[in-house]
This record gives sequence, C-alpha cells and structure tokens, in this order.
Amino acid sequence: MKISFIGSGNVATALGLALKSSNHEILQVYSRNLENAVQLTQELSAKAINDLSRLDDGADVYILAVPDDVIAPLAVNFPFKNKLIIHTSGTVDIAVLKAASSLNGVLYPIQTISRNKVIDFRMVPLAVEGSTDGVLHVLTDMARSVSDRVLELDSPRRKVLHLAAVFACNFSNHFYAIAEKILANEGLSFDLIQPLIVETATKTQILSPAEAQTGPAARRDFNTISQHLEYLSNSPDLKSLYQLITQSIIDSRKSK
Amino acid sequence: MKISFIGSGNVATALGLALKSSNHEILQVYSRNLENAVQLTQELSAKAINDLSRLDDGADVYILAVPDDVIAPLAVNFPFKNKLIIHTSGTVDIAVLKAASSLNGVLYPIQTISRNKVIDFRMVPLAVEGSTDGVLHVLTDMARSVSDRVLELDSPRRKVLHLAAVFACNFSNHFYAIAEKILANEGLSFDLIQPLIVETATKTQILSPAEAQTGPAARRDFNTISQHLEYLSNSPDLKSLYQLITQSIIDSRKSK
Repeated sequence: MKISFIGSGNVATALGLALKSSNHEILQVYSRNLENAVQLTQELSAKAINDLSRLDDGADVYILAVPDDVIAPLAVNFPFKNKLIIHTSGTVDIAVLKAASSLNGVLYPIQTISRNKVIDFRMVPLAVEGSTDGVLHVLTDMARSVSDRVLELDSPRRKVLHLAAVFACNFSNHFYAIAEKILANEGLSFDLIQPLIVETATKTQILSPAEAQTGPAARRDFNTISQHLEYLSNSPDLKSLYQLITQSIIDSRKSK
Repeated sequence: MKISFIGSGNVATALGLALKSSNHEILQVYSRNLENAVQLTQELSAKAINDLSRLDDGADVYILAVPDDVIAPLAVNFPFKNKLIIHTSGTVDIAVLKAASSLNGVLYPIQTISRNKVIDFRMVPLAVEGSTDGVLHVLTDMARSVSDRVLELDSPRRKVLHLAAVFACNFSNHFYAIAEKILANEGLSFDLIQPLIVETATKTQILSPAEAQTGPAARRDFNTISQHLEYLSNSPDLKSLYQLITQSIIDSRKSK
C-alpha cells in the first residue's frame, strides 16, 4: 500500500520503518517543522512536507501519528474527504476523525515507543478499528503485515485498555522513580533494584500478578509496614501513597 | 567452604545451587518438614534434617533462609555460640542474630526468587553485612564466588533498600494485578499489555524513570484523566488510588 504520515515522532518512526520493511511505500511525512521530518523521510525514502495543502492525494492510507490533543484540529484540516485516515492513539475516540473523512479508523500500538530503543514490532499488539467493514479489513491486513498480534477493538474498550496500561505502566514507572529517589537519599544506586524490577515484570509472563504478589502487605507483616511508615514520616505524600496501596493489597487478598 | 542451610524454600534453593556450582560443599539442610528438604538435599548432595539438635558443627557458615518472622525464634535455638550464622532477609536487623552467635551476618539477595523460574545468580546484587571485619571478609568472598555484584550494606540502609524495592516491585506488581482485573471486566486478555509492562521495566536500564515518565498525568492531559476517573466511579478504591498517584506524578514534575 501507499502510505503517508502526518507526524514524525516516535510512533511515526517505528510504524513507518515497520511498514517500509514489509514492502509498503511511504510517500510523504508531514511535520510542522520540516527539519523534524528530514531524517525520517531519508530512512523511509519519503518526501518531507510542512504544509498540509501539499499532501499528495495518491496515498491509500493517511496515518495521523501525533499527540492526542492535535488529532482533532488536524482532522478538520485534512484535505481529502474520501480518503482513508487513521490515528494511533489509545484514548481518542474514532468519531473525532469524521470531520476528516467518512473513511476513518484507528491503529493503536499497545507499546511504549522510544526513539533510542529498538523494539520488535512483530511482537507489538495492534488494536484496530474502522468506520466501515471495508476499512476494518484494510487496516487488519496492514496491521498483520507488521505485527503477529492484531485485534479488533472499539473505542470504548480501547480506552479501558489504555486505562489498564496507565495503572500497569505509567503508575509502575512512577514507583520506579520514587524508589530511585528513596535510594538516592541514602546514596544508593538505582542499579541495585533493576534486576528485581525486570524480574517482577517478566514474571507476569508465567504467573498471574495477583498470585505472584509478595512483600510485607501480601504477608500481612505489620511490623515491617510500621517500620516503613516511620521511615516515611518526613514525606507525608509518600506515606499516604504507601498506606493506601498497602491497604489495597491487603483488601484484594481478603476478597479472594 | 562448608555450608549448612536452615530452611529449604526458594532462597535456600537458589543460593544453595549457586554455592554448590561454585564448589562450596553443602552439608545439611534443615526443614521442619523433612519432605520439603528431600528434593533440595538430593540436588545439593546434602543431608536433610528436621531437628536443630542434629545440626553438624562442621560447617563454616550456617545460612538461615527462612521467613522473616521465624529468624528470631530459630536464632535463639541455634546450638553453636561461636559459629558463623547469617540470615538472608532485607528487613530483619543483624542484631537479631546476637542471640545465636557473636559471629553473625547478613547476605541479602536483592531479587525476587521463585522456584519455577530460573535466574542468573551472577547478576543478582548481594548486600552483605558482618558482626566483625573478619565475618564481613568471609561473607564478601563467599558472595563474590556466586555473584558479580556484591556490596556492603548496614542494616538501616538495607531496610531502606527494601522499602525502595517494595515501591518499585511489590506496588508495581499490585498495579499489574489491578490492570489484569480492569481488562478482565471488559473480556480483554492481560497478554495485551505484557509487552508494555516488560518494556517499561526494561527501559529503566537506559533511562532514569523520572525522565521516562509518560502518560496522561505526565502530560497533564486532564481530559483523559477525567474520562478515567469517570470510568472508575463504580470502584471508589481504585478511583482514590488513581487520583492520588496522578497527583503524585503531577507534583513530582512540578518540583523538577
């Protein structure tokens, strides 16, 4: 297929490279700032543009890979009312794209994508949604050409999936950051708990996290819990977090 | 060295096998229930006992690898007042072992150890502490024989390290479990977010978690946050957690 990107960030880069490797042709990459798109267009053998009115009408799919809050304004300015346009967001409703074209859809890569860390795109689950059966068919085929894990997901369920990802990943990462800070206060390196962090995450592949739960709260070790709370008494915010999550762990095991 | 274990659980198993591979000799493994120790003693070519009075006095080190709350009672019943005894806990103070022997110490593997998941023990950081310089020297040598990452850590700092691990691992795992529940409510498989969980954890190896933070709270996307809170309105506990952690992420980025 012939594909153009609106946006030149991490998702556009990873998805663009994966699509090109699977023999799709990338025509153009739009970026407000032309310089941002130059490196990517070289890798994709595509053309960089910084003006939506210069978008070529020859693409089969236009992929809006931009921050959530600019999807709607860009959709309004999309020039081809009968061309297929999709976005890649976990949270934005498909309905936002109606303003762009009647042929619209979503391809949401369920992964955190950084520019400086290569991922195996074939292992990235892709959630697809289409405004028509035909669109869904086209998107499913395109998604399968780059990933082994493609599923259909409507906007409400995609948003719930994103909420689950916020708990499992954004919140966990915040706790990594809190741990880093606690360690730094004692002059200890974050490196010390990295193997533990990776092992805890990897363990979910063989054991349900509810069953894998360990630690003072899981074993109702109130002696250790009270030592931890005492240590945190100078950080009231961390103390509140510790108490609430500890209680949540205890409650979740009661209800089993 | 000649080593005996008091305890036959996951830590005794992993540490025992690592020590045996490094040419230490495992003499005995004590377990309340003899059956629990039989498989391990076969793998270690050691002898199983279920009575502390049958402990052979020929070992150089006795390793108490038991749940935190039985370290103190077992220490009191340790029969050799001048033999080196150590425990493997992140939270229990070294002072608890004074009741057992004047020669005592700690070897805390900073890793979550399961029976059914093999880990590379050479990559496990080991925190050691000794009641004397001589003990510390012996323990450091023993630790280095099985791991490339050995550090000296006194009891107060070891407890802080453990607290950091509770945030980074126990709490993260609880959020994996919450995510699993949120997904199950929509008939979605936890598999869908496993690559994301592993990638988020692995990313800490190349990027500080504070810098790596993404998601609605990090980008102050109050529209998505309020959609999430609305979805959670039937789960007041989860809603409180979501609010408190979201606020904590927002606050932590203000203070930068």
